[in-house]
Amino acid sequence: MLALTILGNNSAIPAHGRNPTAQVLQTNDENYLIDCGEGTQNQLTKYKIKRSKINKIFISHLHGDHYFGLIGLLTSMGLLGRTNDLHVYAPALLQPIIQLHLDAANTTLPYQLYFHILEKEGEIANDKKITVSAFKVYHRIDCFGFLFKEKKNPRSINPEKVKMYEIPEAFYSELQKGSDYITKKGTIVANEAVTEPATAARMYAYCADTIYDESIAEKIKGADLVYHETTYLKDLEERAAARFHCTTIQAGNIAKLAGAKKLLIGHFSSKYEVLDEFLVETKEVFENTELAHEGACFKI
Amino acid sequence: MLALTILGNNSAIPAHGRNPTAQVLQTNDENYLIDCGEGTQNQLTKYKIKRSKINKIFISHLHGDHYFGLIGLLTSMGLLGRTNDLHVYAPALLQPIIQLHLDAANTTLPYQLYFHILEKEGEIANDKKITVSAFKVYHRIDCFGFLFKEKKNPRSINPEKVKMYEIPEAFYSELQKGSDYITKKGTIVANEAVTEPATAARMYAYCADTIYDESIAEKIKGADLVYHETTYLKDLEERAAARFHCTTIQAGNIAKLAGAKKLLIGHFSSKYEVLDEFLVETKEVFENTELAHEGACFKI
Repeated sequence: MLALTILGNNSAIPAHGRNPTAQVLQTNDENYLIDCGEGTQNQLTKYKIKRSKINKIFISHLHGDHYFGLIGLLTSMGLLGRTNDLHVYAPALLQPIIQLHLDAANTTLPYQLYFHILEKEGEIANDKKITVSAFKVYHRIDCFGFLFKEKKNPRSINPEKVKMYEIPEAFYSELQKGSDYITKKGTIVANEAVTEPATAARMYAYCADTIYDESIAEKIKGADLVYHETTYLKDLEERAAARFHCTTIQAGNIAKLAGAKKLLIGHFSSKYEVLDEFLVETKEVFENTELAHEGACFKI
Repeated sequence: MLALTILGNNSAIPAHGRNPTAQVLQTNDENYLIDCGEGTQNQLTKYKIKRSKINKIFISHLHGDHYFGLIGLLTSMGLLGRTNDLHVYAPALLQPIIQLHLDAANTTLPYQLYFHILEKEGEIANDKKITVSAFKVYHRIDCFGFLFKEKKNPRSINPEKVKMYEIPEAFYSELQKGSDYITKKGTIVANEAVTEPATAARMYAYCADTIYDESIAEKIKGADLVYHETTYLKDLEERAAARFHCTTIQAGNIAKLAGAKKLLIGHFSSKYEVLDEFLVETKEVFENTELAHEGACFKI
């Protein structure tokens, strides 16, 4: 399973019942939390996302609509008795902010909190099935996007064929990696004869808040799902640029240049009560687009 | 008008759809915000409380369930173009926390934020119609309650009587203060002959988070409305004490000792999904008790 659930999609000020930015990328093993606007802990409850499976939290930048919910979530995890390590990846200044909040409450978290400072591009996490890289995007303050890549999937074993060639179970993991099998008599059983090719490793690219920048497309090339902000409709391109944000058309362009399979748009300005036009405009450039509606879950 | 609206009533962790602590005391001129748990800005929107009339915010102590919504509210006020001064009354450590959040976002608020450090008991604000005093309560960290006192109301003029005695309008404000009128001929018109007594000045006491402490009753003597925490039911008195909190019976006792007209109970532990028993138990001690239900408005 690889699926993305939207917990919030609004920019700056919560409005029209829309919450600030937060998303969860779910695998069978882990819930990766991406940004954490105010109210995220309530949204996790509402959409039944297990906190115990959140071990890594990625904060793109330190504008409040992307992280004001973090300190509440961290302390609630403590109050609920969490003992597992938690890793936070964020710009450096978040660390003293968290510490000051804890000091003010005279609180020590009952779990180990590891803080990883985001300062340059590259791999930041390497799990059993997923690697996470950070890439720079261009916003009013330091801001990072995140690329989640599934590791190359193992080849799948054909149960009838392995039986036929009498290959011992102990060798199955080698088969999954692509090795041939050599029988006791020295005969080579080609891997392709007993396994099926791996399904393609999937990629999710979260492009955070950014001005229009085509170099981002290179960094997320071939992603199955791209989330790109569309704070404004296309008629406000100048305002978007002045505020280091993007329009519908610009988000569509990035997805097209990146050769993405699907585009998800969000971070809508509070000035828009209805979002339909965002979809219409973006589809002019990139047909397979969806709105990052709160609560929506996108299988990747 | 003097009325209290409840925006949140839960302790520690948001649960069962209950938000952390926040209240607004409303007069015709001002909305006084008392504590500001995560999500308060959304609650203000939901209950149609005008932010433009919030000029003073009182934070009792620096446990997250009482202030994690403040930084979001402060920045949203800025994004919405506020220019009026705002006053925050809180323990000292909140000031560097706010500053660090603003620094991280490279943001300057477009309005003047005055920070008033709570450190001792006494009057902290003096408005046209209301004075606010802070008083110490006893919690795990420094914690203050707030007493809102209406100023002594003016006597009301009896329009028929002042006409009858031919008292000039210019003297009305003196009459309201209680002065007698002396006619040109030197006759004394007693104040009581032409005015009615003032309505009693009302008092609201917010007792924040506290262990059971009867000395609080002295500090809030005669309050029309007392808010007192009841984190636990009466069977958990020991746990309440260990965590510097109170039970239903204890809250009722404080209201009784204070000679309060009405008691409002809140700050319920997340372990309780249903709250009915809180009301039943507290009424054993103090009959005129109500639950601080979210969205409820209490006229004082």
